[in-house]
Amino acid sequence: MTVAKKFEKLGNRFSPGQHARHSADAAAFLVGDILPGRAVDFSHGDVVAHPPSAESFACFAAAVDAGAAYTLYRGAEEIRTILSGRLADFTGAPVNAKEELIITPGSQGALFLAIAATVAAGDKVAIVQPDYYANRKLVEFFEGEMLPVRMDYVTTSGRAGLDLDQLEDAFRAGARVFLFSNPNNPAGVVYSADEIDAIAALAGRYGVTVIADELYSRLLYAGSTYTHLRARAVDPDQVITIMGPSKTESLSGYRLGIAFGAAQIIERMEKLQGIVSLRAPAYSQAVLRTWFAEPAGWMAARIAAHQAIRDDVLRLFRGIDSCRIRTPDAGSYLFPELPALRIAPADFVTALREQAGVVVTPGTEFSPHAGRNIRLNFSQDREATAAAVTRIAALVERYRA
Amino acid sequence: MTVAKKFEKLGNRFSPGQHARHSADAAAFLVGDILPGRAVDFSHGDVVAHPPSAESFACFAAAVDAGAAYTLYRGAEEIRTILSGRLADFTGAPVNAKEELIITPGSQGALFLAIAATVAAGDKVAIVQPDYYANRKLVEFFEGEMLPVRMDYVTTSGRAGLDLDQLEDAFRAGARVFLFSNPNNPAGVVYSADEIDAIAALAGRYGVTVIADELYSRLLYAGSTYTHLRARAVDPDQVITIMGPSKTESLSGYRLGIAFGAAQIIERMEKLQGIVSLRAPAYSQAVLRTWFAEPAGWMAARIAAHQAIRDDVLRLFRGIDSCRIRTPDAGSYLFPELPALRIAPADFVTALREQAGVVVTPGTEFSPHAGRNIRLNFSQDREATAAAVTRIAALVERYRA
Repeated sequence: MTVAKKFEKLGNRFSPGQHARHSADAAAFLVGDILPGRAVDFSHGDVVAHPPSAESFACFAAAVDAGAAYTLYRGAEEIRTILSGRLADFTGAPVNAKEELIITPGSQGALFLAIAATVAAGDKVAIVQPDYYANRKLVEFFEGEMLPVRMDYVTTSGRAGLDLDQLEDAFRAGARVFLFSNPNNPAGVVYSADEIDAIAALAGRYGVTVIADELYSRLLYAGSTYTHLRARAVDPDQVITIMGPSKTESLSGYRLGIAFGAAQIIERMEKLQGIVSLRAPAYSQAVLRTWFAEPAGWMAARIAAHQAIRDDVLRLFRGIDSCRIRTPDAGSYLFPELPALRIAPADFVTALREQAGVVVTPGTEFSPHAGRNIRLNFSQDREATAAAVTRIAALVERYRA
Repeated sequence: MTVAKKFEKLGNRFSPGQHARHSADAAAFLVGDILPGRAVDFSHGDVVAHPPSAESFACFAAAVDAGAAYTLYRGAEEIRTILSGRLADFTGAPVNAKEELIITPGSQGALFLAIAATVAAGDKVAIVQPDYYANRKLVEFFEGEMLPVRMDYVTTSGRAGLDLDQLEDAFRAGARVFLFSNPNNPAGVVYSADEIDAIAALAGRYGVTVIADELYSRLLYAGSTYTHLRARAVDPDQVITIMGPSKTESLSGYRLGIAFGAAQIIERMEKLQGIVSLRAPAYSQAVLRTWFAEPAGWMAARIAAHQAIRDDVLRLFRGIDSCRIRTPDAGSYLFPELPALRIAPADFVTALREQAGVVVTPGTEFSPHAGRNIRLNFSQDREATAAAVTRIAALVERYRA
């Protein structure tokens, strides 16, 4: 494939936060007035409304003072040692600090390196629909072939709703890698222990490498239980787990992510990181000292704050006739399916931005079958969020088919 | 190419700073005692000996306070606007802030994205020998074909010594991209105006895209003059210039780089950054406010400090019989060619580490023809450097053939 062709396919027009690059055309489909209210950008969280723990900046400042500007490409050994113990405790399976863990620039960096380390041109990769928008793009960039696996998150309950038969079909058809987010981004559903065990069993049977993006696995709402794939009956050399402190912990501005698991894949990831960005920002790495070591009650308070906002927003979306939405088990995303509108989904996203001061991410970023969905990151100011979703509801009525 | 094969080729065993990953075997070739003295890691600069300007950390802290955790993938518009003016002044040609500039995680990030945006499998790329070790690896990772171009930096003076006939041969043979560092890493030589104009003319004639890595172009010693390719007679759509504040300005710990030039290539780079690491660390981006705006006299003092160390080290290497070394015009690298030794070059690098407490980068990282060279980043404490190079000289005598 030529470079020009490769990059034609790689779009970012609708990627979260990129709307500022694209001036709206004076849109002929817009009717009615602008709805006043405080603008809310639901494409990412608000770190002022939900600030990082106070210790994070102090750790950064201390690293600057110490002149700790350089580390191994895979990250500072001391930090990796601290993290390996905490991540082993959290996930319920050991992590070798020297060989099985790499610190990356954001969890996006970890995803990129993990896919690069496992997928070559023509390799088949099973991808859930819907799932994180970059997964598909990563596979396409490395010229892999995507085998979609349906997840019926809307009508299922008690489990994520992955179609396990379709997953086995994909593995049987030769998928070498299965990449999925759990909790699912955008739907916020958590895979049940049975689903995780079924994935583990299938991966073992077909020799598939599994990349589990567990970015949101700490922000778990009351009543949810979480199962880490790496702690179940699966060959550790077949699993890479990805996490990071960018979301729940509001540390995105430091650009930190973690991948841990299969030593051979981590080794490849480090080799590649050496020519991609050398290392995660060295001073930022020190901020990871605070991760999984927040003050007592900090995480519980964060979960409670998000659960309250989640419930506000669910109530508002459920007040819209013919809107379908599932209660997220975890994370800060909502993925409502809106009723039929008389303008195109992309135009409705524009209407929300221009007439309601609300930025959302179109559902088609996550699945070609989610044209009627929008994704909201509700890690925002609570009052502003409720007001913004009320404006979304008003525009749904304005443009209802 | 399979993933396994691709990563077998991508080595980092001898990459700067990676020595800590590889325990030395109890080496049978080592003779004599350990030479005492303060250890010096010449694989990268010492940001304690040469600290960043005081304002840099204050800018970072202000960004954290403001909660500026998210930016466009190409970087914050305000920062890009500030930089575009300064970079236009510095290089002598305009930069459009909106379309022609991207902020990346380090200048390594910029190099990676620029090569990814211009080189597909089978594309030919002209690469100077010697040049920055990652250039070759980047071309190989994207399965491009490398066409080497010789640079006779040792015996030439008044110019870098690029073999322009070989460059034209490479262009005639179908090179689509020419990637080179100026000042050259590792040799520290600056291309003359005539050489830059010849490159510009050849690039125009053969339609070659030029990626100019100008990372060290601010650290210019007395008597040197620098010519920016982008300001000469060349189609702006054919040139990407890469810089960053990691080296001269000691800001490596913040992971910041810049690429500017051809809008279409910058656009591709942003698309790719959106799936590689999303953006350069958002808080770090604010540190770029200080770049090219250091306090009066700051850069002159930095240059003087480095020139003094350079001259110390040159004197010491020139005291070694049959050692060849050229005076660098710019930057903080020295690339001495050592006399013939009775142990292999890689073993001598091990001897330096184990017996002299000195880490250097082997010449073969930069050119297959530089087996007798070592690279030193002399941005270090002056006294420790002189003592360390004295130990290198002692080990050269110990192992002389």
